[in-house]
Amino acid sequence: MLSDFADLDHDRLARRGYPEAVYCEGKSVEQVRAIAAALRDRGGRALFTRVRADQVDTVLTELPGAHHDVDGRVVAWPGEPPAPTGGLVVVVAAGTSDLPVAREAETTARHLGRECALVVDVGVAGLHRVLGHLEILRRARALVVVAGMDGALPGVVAGLVSAPVVAVPTSVGYGAAFEGLAPLLTMLNACAPGVAVVNIDNGYGAGHLAAQIAAPVPAG
Amino acid sequence: MLSDFADLDHDRLARRGYPEAVYCEGKSVEQVRAIAAALRDRGGRALFTRVRADQVDTVLTELPGAHHDVDGRVVAWPGEPPAPTGGLVVVVAAGTSDLPVAREAETTARHLGRECALVVDVGVAGLHRVLGHLEILRRARALVVVAGMDGALPGVVAGLVSAPVVAVPTSVGYGAAFEGLAPLLTMLNACAPGVAVVNIDNGYGAGHLAAQIAAPVPAG
Amino acid sequence: MLSDFADLDHDRLARRGYPEAVYCEGKSVEQVRAIAAALRDRGGRALFTRVRADQVDTVLTELPGAHHDVDGRVVAWPGEPPAPTGGLVVVVAAGTSDLPVAREAETTARHLGRECALVVDVGVAGLHRVLGHLEILRRARALVVVAGMDGALPGVVAGLVSAPVVAVPTSVGYGAAFEGLAPLLTMLNACAPGVAVVNIDNGYGAGHLAAQIAAPVPAG
Amino acid sequence: MLSDFADLDHDRLARRGYPEAVYCEGKSVEQVRAIAAALRDRGGRALFTRVRADQVDTVLTELPGAHHDVDGRVVAWPGEPPAPTGGLVVVVAAGTSDLPVAREAETTARHLGRECALVVDVGVAGLHRVLGHLEILRRARALVVVAGMDGALPGVVAGLVSAPVVAVPTSVGYGAAFEGLAPLLTMLNACAPGVAVVNIDNGYGAGHLAAQIAAPVPAG
Amino acid sequence: MLSDFADLDHDRLARRGYPEAVYCEGKSVEQVRAIAAALRDRGGRALFTRVRADQVDTVLTELPGAHHDVDGRVVAWPGEPPAPTGGLVVVVAAGTSDLPVAREAETTARHLGRECALVVDVGVAGLHRVLGHLEILRRARALVVVAGMDGALPGVVAGLVSAPVVAVPTSVGYGAAFEGLAPLLTMLNACAPGVAVVNIDNGYGAGHLAAQIAAPVPAG
Amino acid sequence: MLSDFADLDHDRLARRGYPEAVYCEGKSVEQVRAIAAALRDRGGRALFTRVRADQVDTVLTELPGAHHDVDGRVVAWPGEPPAPTGGLVVVVAAGTSDLPVAREAETTARHLGRECALVVDVGVAGLHRVLGHLEILRRARALVVVAGMDGALPGVVAGLVSAPVVAVPTSVGYGAAFEGLAPLLTMLNACAPGVAVVNIDNGYGAGHLAAQIAAPVPAG
Amino acid sequence: MLSDFADLDHDRLARRGYPEAVYCEGKSVEQVRAIAAALRDRGGRALFTRVRADQVDTVLTELPGAHHDVDGRVVAWPGEPPAPTGGLVVVVAAGTSDLPVAREAETTARHLGRECALVVDVGVAGLHRVLGHLEILRRARALVVVAGMDGALPGVVAGLVSAPVVAVPTSVGYGAAFEGLAPLLTMLNACAPGVAVVNIDNGYGAGHLAAQIAAPVPAG
Amino acid sequence: MLSDFADLDHDRLARRGYPEAVYCEGKSVEQVRAIAAALRDRGGRALFTRVRADQVDTVLTELPGAHHDVDGRVVAWPGEPPAPTGGLVVVVAAGTSDLPVAREAETTARHLGRECALVVDVGVAGLHRVLGHLEILRRARALVVVAGMDGALPGVVAGLVSAPVVAVPTSVGYGAAFEGLAPLLTMLNACAPGVAVVNIDNGYGAGHLAAQIAAPVPAG
Repeated sequence: MLSDFADLDHDRLARRGYPEAVYCEGKSVEQVRAIAAALRDRGGRALFTRVRADQVDTVLTELPGAHHDVDGRVVAWPGEPPAPTGGLVVVVAAGTSDLPVAREAETTARHLGRECALVVDVGVAGLHRVLGHLEILRRARALVVVAGMDGALPGVVAGLVSAPVVAVPTSVGYGAAFEGLAPLLTMLNACAPGVAVVNIDNGYGAGHLAAQIAAPVPAG
Repeated sequence: MLSDFADLDHDRLARRGYPEAVYCEGKSVEQVRAIAAALRDRGGRALFTRVRADQVDTVLTELPGAHHDVDGRVVAWPGEPPAPTGGLVVVVAAGTSDLPVAREAETTARHLGRECALVVDVGVAGLHRVLGHLEILRRARALVVVAGMDGALPGVVAGLVSAPVVAVPTSVGYGAAFEGLAPLLTMLNACAPGVAVVNIDNGYGAGHLAAQIAAPVPAG
Repeated sequence: MLSDFADLDHDRLARRGYPEAVYCEGKSVEQVRAIAAALRDRGGRALFTRVRADQVDTVLTELPGAHHDVDGRVVAWPGEPPAPTGGLVVVVAAGTSDLPVAREAETTARHLGRECALVVDVGVAGLHRVLGHLEILRRARALVVVAGMDGALPGVVAGLVSAPVVAVPTSVGYGAAFEGLAPLLTMLNACAPGVAVVNIDNGYGAGHLAAQIAAPVPAG
Repeated sequence: MLSDFADLDHDRLARRGYPEAVYCEGKSVEQVRAIAAALRDRGGRALFTRVRADQVDTVLTELPGAHHDVDGRVVAWPGEPPAPTGGLVVVVAAGTSDLPVAREAETTARHLGRECALVVDVGVAGLHRVLGHLEILRRARALVVVAGMDGALPGVVAGLVSAPVVAVPTSVGYGAAFEGLAPLLTMLNACAPGVAVVNIDNGYGAGHLAAQIAAPVPAG
Repeated sequence: MLSDFADLDHDRLARRGYPEAVYCEGKSVEQVRAIAAALRDRGGRALFTRVRADQVDTVLTELPGAHHDVDGRVVAWPGEPPAPTGGLVVVVAAGTSDLPVAREAETTARHLGRECALVVDVGVAGLHRVLGHLEILRRARALVVVAGMDGALPGVVAGLVSAPVVAVPTSVGYGAAFEGLAPLLTMLNACAPGVAVVNIDNGYGAGHLAAQIAAPVPAG
Repeated sequence: MLSDFADLDHDRLARRGYPEAVYCEGKSVEQVRAIAAALRDRGGRALFTRVRADQVDTVLTELPGAHHDVDGRVVAWPGEPPAPTGGLVVVVAAGTSDLPVAREAETTARHLGRECALVVDVGVAGLHRVLGHLEILRRARALVVVAGMDGALPGVVAGLVSAPVVAVPTSVGYGAAFEGLAPLLTMLNACAPGVAVVNIDNGYGAGHLAAQIAAPVPAG
Repeated sequence: MLSDFADLDHDRLARRGYPEAVYCEGKSVEQVRAIAAALRDRGGRALFTRVRADQVDTVLTELPGAHHDVDGRVVAWPGEPPAPTGGLVVVVAAGTSDLPVAREAETTARHLGRECALVVDVGVAGLHRVLGHLEILRRARALVVVAGMDGALPGVVAGLVSAPVVAVPTSVGYGAAFEGLAPLLTMLNACAPGVAVVNIDNGYGAGHLAAQIAAPVPAG
Repeated sequence: MLSDFADLDHDRLARRGYPEAVYCEGKSVEQVRAIAAALRDRGGRALFTRVRADQVDTVLTELPGAHHDVDGRVVAWPGEPPAPTGGLVVVVAAGTSDLPVAREAETTARHLGRECALVVDVGVAGLHRVLGHLEILRRARALVVVAGMDGALPGVVAGLVSAPVVAVPTSVGYGAAFEGLAPLLTMLNACAPGVAVVNIDNGYGAGHLAAQIAAPVPAG
């Protein structure tokens, strides 16, 4: 019965053209190695996310020329991203501690074929900082805004731009942030419309979603 | 000091062109009437969401010709939506009980200027139903998928299409759905990338976000 | 043994001089009447908070000349507040739905002896609105900022002023606000220091705390 | 008074014939050794679940010939499972990370006397994968479906088969999975009837329940 | 594309033979009427669960001869259950307040073709009561055990029988039962293996699952 | 098999001698009537707790001479409590709103055969009030302390006496009390040892436990 | 002002006669040493609870002859408990993993002057085990029942005895036990009256409370 | 566009004069070094909070003469606090385990220019201890009260003084304290008005808020 449905997937991949992603957390070095080898043999693009220190060398050995984003814990293969199409994706990090998640989003979006820009350290405690970047924020076709603690930045940014904002809560903060629950709820309750929430610390998902939003419009 | 900042807002409105929204829950009939009158005098488009039965007549009196979406509890003014631009928005409701939220999303997206289609009763318990609508699902530039209970439908749909899926959890279900918490968590944890989550029962927010995603790409 | 400790309380009351407060929720009309009568006989100032419609007439009958703040559900007795001392208390409401809680805070602070000002409808979705009130915000010796939904306003205001901000989450919002839990967490996690959080919808507590902060500094 | 009740237990064991299970987490090596020795002396079947690395050797020394399922962290004794009776149990793992729990379920069911089959990597993000295994899924008299993250797979499978589905949430996933809470709620709220939920990561419990469901029907 | 998948569903229905269920909560009287009429025209068995008082007459008018289980809020059509096949289903209610949920389970299982027995008021606070029903409990091929408050009964029963126990938490109890959360957690953590948990107050789901477990084993 | 266990219960009742309790919430008037009639015919003591307004007359008709504690929503039968034995039970209510729960505890303990005293309005915000009752508090062999909001009173009282304190959280308070969850947690975390926590608003359980603690010591 | 209140404490200690307890978690070795030295110089009884491995030697050096309960992580000084008075305290552990908490309770109660007995491995999954200890359970004037996972044992025991049961939830169990939350809720919702709940894993608090309940009744 | 808003921040800093704070958790040693160097070059005051052991030397090397508060994990630069102005800040720690958080608050307030006093080990289980410090408590213009477990101390203190109490919950305690959630809720629900709650373990935020409350009143 497989043959009845296999075309579903081919069709989807063909239209999407997005690289496959391998979530490395909870996988053994050997499992990751085998997957890397299979991808190399099969060809096509791939991302390895949440790569642990003990997995990196193996992946880089199996996939020569792959790009390792150390901060974002991502390995992208091939190392060169595709030539950018579609609109600009702007990734915004509220604070330095949110940088790893922001980097993961940025690398993901770039290797899905979008032009990317990164803006850091623009928390709402000093509004002049975010207001100082209005021009680049408004040039984006999709934004990724990463914030821990109160998670207020995505709602503030969404009120300043017309493009959709992908909001990523992070697990950074004091006790009552409850490992990211507080900023997650803040983002879901953002007063400004236009905020699309993804999972806590899920930079990959945010970058993927932003790349989809900013994708080139199919002709026709 | 207001004059220093007022241009921020004008700029945003000018670029966006989206109608203002009045959230009617928790407002008195008199407050809603005054807002309706002010909007009529000022001109421009407006949406009244979560309109209670005791508020509807007042709004319709103040804003003659407004459109009342009874199921979605929305009043749109003027009654005619703008001529559609951008891509198609497809709104999907998992079950009959999710219909009010789906309608709110649809009316919102249409009055923000998008062409819309509605697909109902395609829960994951019978996969043939969702698979039977693949063609329309894949024509969308943005999808809104509304589901209560297990909230599994948005993740399944996201795996079948290349456009972003705006996922709306609803408060429909047995006790352990905890008023929408269960489907909310399901959607945030969707295995397929491309799922943008909004607040529980927030059809307006979903329709707005989908309209932004499917907006026409600015020239240049 | 009572006499050993009774002076504790007299001492506290003497130094504080704040009116007694009667929380009316969960009390019968007869209980409230008896308390009002006792207060009238004893003299001194008093506030009745969360007064239900069926309790108001009784209180006003027992305490002629009392002031009834309908929106804030507060009865203050005597009706005239004391001549203001100390610094200015500015009460800020993010949206119209937060007004009852803001009014409760304002009436409380005024009857504890502070000059008060009220600023409404300055949500973070339109930053120009809050920035347009910078002058009055910065004149305050204590601020009360009331917000539901994402609860982001107190943190933004705290970043703009040097006085302490008393933050009051309200139970206004869509499902994932969880009856005020979301804005409560946001406020506890505010990035800007200087945010003092009180209970959900507790306008009385906020007004009391602000009045204490802005109290005249004792000579000495 | 013990003698009055002891027969209760003998009766139960006699009818059930299921091996005793020793939950090794939180037990010392010496405690586990003593239990293993006692079981060897007494005879009969036994399972050691959640066996830690520092406990394995001791158990294998005390119980020569025992079978050690490394992935599933189970030791079964005697090493040979009984000849299978009853119906087929099919164990399904949504992803590679769910494999340890799936293995624990499989080993348990097999050593309780059922024929077992294992199907892996059939997440709902690619429906063609689960649909490609329809034949084996429909041959089962009981299924165990293991999934983390959104936990949507058991509900989808339950809609495709007529046998009961034992659903096991795992603690795999991003932050908002809350250590398995998200898939647990998803499974409890499955739209399709026929889903029996067990504890997070409880492969043993799932395998036991499936073995009971697929047990041979007693004659008479 | 629908035709490619429609056979999936037919196949499932053909093998299962279980009646369709209509969850009436959140549906209008007119919606329920239309569904009832469609079912009558199409033929086949159906259950209406959670039927509200204002919906019952309409359903009974459209489906003459239907059976109305008042306590369980279920309407079954046709009124006569099928001749029983498979094994016995025993439904156990811990207390009188759990009876509506137990009745819903019983009616469901009976109209899915199982012989049923009901045992009531056997809470764990008086063990002699549950021990007094050991014989009937042990004759079951599947049990449904309904309990609120501490939810301890299913685990105790599972320790006394060899058949699977479907555990249904109810929303009955003092404040710290949190609308069924407490017994839900108790059941998920039952020490005895063999407990299959379903949603809070979900008698329909429990009855359906028990009917599947006790279904006649297909020949071959 | 019943006869094997029935003596268990007779034995327990004989030694305990406590009246049976009927929890009326969720029972119909007819069910309560039938239970009342059966108790009257059988004889012995009984308590009806959480009696609704529509149930009271029926109970009083079936059980002439029964005592109705209106505040505590309890009916005790026979109306006269037994002659007190054992030690004194002191019931303490932090505020007026906690009085119904305190009354339920008091009536329960009295009809289980203890001498009782009630102390009201001794919240920790004014320590002199609780310190003023030290003498009666220290005469108790068991105390019941009822408090909502911060629930701090039981821990403070436990630090002042040597007898055990039964702590009852109530659902009284602002939003972040979460229907009694806040005082429940406070009591479980009391710094002073000697605090025994029962369910939210469960005055019956608290009175019963206190009566057991203060029971006369059996000779021997 | 201290002198006004110091007698409060002396009075309490004099009447209670219970040893002071030092909670060692979160204290440095040097802090614990200083406290031990001060206690030795002052005289009187003391318990050190939750003693870490790195603290034990220091305590034993400062307090020669102290008793170290390794399982219960308690050091009692002097090593000899006082001659027992009052009634018997029976400590019951549901499983082997609950033993450390049970031991802490037992050592505490014994050094507060009660005779103690310990019963282990009597989980509700095998009722015959708890029923086999009925005689010793019924001889107790206070019981401590320690259980993790479903936490059902205290409620079952409370239904079998007339003395109060102090229930201690433990953090033992699979994921949905949520570090002891599940058994905590179970115990708070126990159907049988007479269950006094204390904090998760708080064996010290349970032993102290039981010792108070079983204390000798003061003459007079 | 930056120049339009930059003055906002200068204005704020000028009026506030509070040192910048660097939250070191989640920052690399190199990042902290770079920030320290930049601050040294720029001049002005700064606090480094939550400094890890591996970061301290680097900070002290870059900022010679800085003060390292080991207990409070704070580095203040310059090492000398400014000459105190405004009112007295009294920091109160309920127990020894709350001392690190109390120290962080004290160092923060002192380096923001306030005179500080520290009171330790005054938990509510022994009221005489807190009552013994009434004089110093009442001399404060702002208090910081740090408490874990039941978190009852701030509410008790607030009832004894007229100045505002900044309440800091700590993550100290048994399981049901849930890492500080229990004392957090207690403080939010304090019966006494005048309690300002900050985040769990957030000594810095508490010290900052207290310094603002006790700031000198600007002339005019």
